[in-house]
Amino acid sequence: MSLFSVHRAVDEAEASAYSDMWRSLLPLGLNSDTGGYRRFAWNTADLACRDWFRSEAAARGLEVETDRNGNLWAWWGPKGPGAIVTGSHLDSVPDGGAFDGPLGVVSSFAAVDVLRARGFTPAKPFAVACFSDEEGARFGIACAGSRLMTGALSAEKARGLCDLDGVTMASAMEQAGQDPATLGRDDERLEGIAAYVELHVEQGKALAFTESPVAVASAIWPHSRWRFEFAGEANHAGTTRLEDRRDPMLTYANAVLAARKKAKLGGAVATFGRLVVEPNGTNAIPSRVRAWLDVRAPADEILAAVTEEIIKAADERAGRDGTVLSTERESHTPVVEFDDVLRNRLAGSLRQTFGAVPVLPTGAGHDAGILAAAVPTAMLYVRNPTGVSHAPGEHADDRDCLAGVTALADVLQELCQ
Amino acid sequence: MSLFSVHRAVDEAEASAYSDMWRSLLPLGLNSDTGGYRRFAWNTADLACRDWFRSEAAARGLEVETDRNGNLWAWWGPKGPGAIVTGSHLDSVPDGGAFDGPLGVVSSFAAVDVLRARGFTPAKPFAVACFSDEEGARFGIACAGSRLMTGALSAEKARGLCDLDGVTMASAMEQAGQDPATLGRDDERLEGIAAYVELHVEQGKALAFTESPVAVASAIWPHSRWRFEFAGEANHAGTTRLEDRRDPMLTYANAVLAARKKAKLGGAVATFGRLVVEPNGTNAIPSRVRAWLDVRAPADEILAAVTEEIIKAADERAGRDGTVLSTERESHTPVVEFDDVLRNRLAGSLRQTFGAVPVLPTGAGHDAGILAAAVPTAMLYVRNPTGVSHAPGEHADDRDCLAGVTALADVLQELCQ
Repeated sequence: MSLFSVHRAVDEAEASAYSDMWRSLLPLGLNSDTGGYRRFAWNTADLACRDWFRSEAAARGLEVETDRNGNLWAWWGPKGPGAIVTGSHLDSVPDGGAFDGPLGVVSSFAAVDVLRARGFTPAKPFAVACFSDEEGARFGIACAGSRLMTGALSAEKARGLCDLDGVTMASAMEQAGQDPATLGRDDERLEGIAAYVELHVEQGKALAFTESPVAVASAIWPHSRWRFEFAGEANHAGTTRLEDRRDPMLTYANAVLAARKKAKLGGAVATFGRLVVEPNGTNAIPSRVRAWLDVRAPADEILAAVTEEIIKAADERAGRDGTVLSTERESHTPVVEFDDVLRNRLAGSLRQTFGAVPVLPTGAGHDAGILAAAVPTAMLYVRNPTGVSHAPGEHADDRDCLAGVTALADVLQELCQ
Repeated sequence: MSLFSVHRAVDEAEASAYSDMWRSLLPLGLNSDTGGYRRFAWNTADLACRDWFRSEAAARGLEVETDRNGNLWAWWGPKGPGAIVTGSHLDSVPDGGAFDGPLGVVSSFAAVDVLRARGFTPAKPFAVACFSDEEGARFGIACAGSRLMTGALSAEKARGLCDLDGVTMASAMEQAGQDPATLGRDDERLEGIAAYVELHVEQGKALAFTESPVAVASAIWPHSRWRFEFAGEANHAGTTRLEDRRDPMLTYANAVLAARKKAKLGGAVATFGRLVVEPNGTNAIPSRVRAWLDVRAPADEILAAVTEEIIKAADERAGRDGTVLSTERESHTPVVEFDDVLRNRLAGSLRQTFGAVPVLPTGAGHDAGILAAAVPTAMLYVRNPTGVSHAPGEHADDRDCLAGVTALADVLQELCQ
């Protein structure tokens, strides 16, 4: 495995510990057919990743606790108020890449190693966090762990969320030994955090056009997920005249093209990437098509306007097709502007090693975006040469990843002084 | 259960035996959430239906054999050449209705009861057949049992067909105790059949506008099934600019609308009813969409022309979307004209009780259509008041069903004299 080979910028022993972390993490939840990851909240692969987190923490003498919402915390030294927290998540989208989430967690542990090698001991409580269910791949709501913690997602709603097999989040948690009765806003924990810094692989390729391996986040685009349900009438594909059909696949197809068109006109992005067809038979007109729309835009009002136009277009077509459209917004995250003071402090601490680093917005949601409502948060991005994200081709060069570790260590040292 | 209550046109004991048959068959493979059937080749529900067939045959003293291709035969009296065969199938499309297939099998056993009550004993070998895997819901090829028997599907190809879980037909058969090594054209059996008559619920509602509860089939439209594979590039739905995307869902959506348009212009029917999306995540642009096109037309040349136009339109759009379309014809059935002589003989034998019955073409494929290449075949249709087919709402009135039994018994009596 040459992926994370020794790099001259860090100590050999640190680089070797870093390679070892990836070596033990990379096989977990990997689908060898697709080359993608299937680490979904509380599934076997996700539980293996949680065990991996515990053992990496233990190897560094960090004490691990699981909070009421299933998020993991590894404390360097005593737990306490005014804590500086770093971390990310380990779950994935279906057939996701190796870096999204894991790069932040691996880099956090590696930053601890770097700080120790520098002889630095934090003067403040310090933790590496691993948030639960960031991608929402199984139960449909992204950042479920951090949303529960801040109260953005109610415990009752979370417990009742169902995966495609009809398993509720409550029962998936119970099976994994996590008590779903304790879910909910965690004021004590939030009040104990002075700052949260999340390192993440860039999603997009803005940094590929710069000299800088790292960037600081400015804002996260507002983001909604909608469930579209197109109801028609199942019938025989060979014997039902076209004029007698109420085919929801037609209405869906039109909605896909409308979403692309309206997003383009509005300067937004809109995607239908997930679909469930019933009965899904070659010779049966579908009775029902359920599809999920992911839509994001630079501003809240653009997001609202583009979404409204997509729904309106789909609704009009449903009328012509004799089908019925119902829509439900499953989640919404308003625009997030990261904390100014913290961002400037990060940029300042990076200047010595990296010069003036770029400051970038993103269309991707993160736990840092959710936590921003309750505590000062900031994000660091590591260069992504192809911009591919949420797919097996996602990649970052090891040189850039190690620069990210150095950057994170610098920032944490500044914050923990 | 009032569905098949006693009807004055038949003897009370026969009507009761008829109701009992339905009562024992209706629960098998029923999905109580959808009200539809999930009897797919060699699955648990299908095996239960096969057991049901064996026990109904045994109750009538008919001897059951399973042929080399998994089709079941229940012989009334000695097996031999020049046989008159009736029957249908018991498997279903996903969430199919109660009548498609089962009505023909139930009516065949009921016709045996009626003939016996009339004191009639066939002067020729007589069998009730239950063909295997008529719908092709699991392995993608319709009428697999009869196609194997006539050689229209090769044993080698059949054995290698995979369901969506990667299980081959060979291994599904083996698990069910059917030896896949013996699959293949069965000349001896085909040569022993003098005529095959299949009763089926009408798929469409032509009879609903007539006085007649039954009709005789004229022809089956030619029919193709195609697999369309749209390949693109998975990426993050929030961070990938529209102009950087290669989104196969867009190409698919356009193909759905093109299929409808081209079918309408050509006087054909075309349906995309089955779909597999990868990775199927809300926040991931799909890497691949696989979709199945079902297309049928009144004549072979219309079918070919309409299909060509759909593929051409989809291919052009793929070029614009940066995606790649590949297509494969998974099955094709040319137009089937049922045997003239046999059809006229059926119409003649029905005249006494039913007057001049309608003669109808259909867009639906049947085992009778496959067998028509090798033996004289005919079909009877029973009125379908709503025309709904391949869906839970599929229905036939019990009065019409019992008229169908009488019609089938009349026809078989004529043929077996």
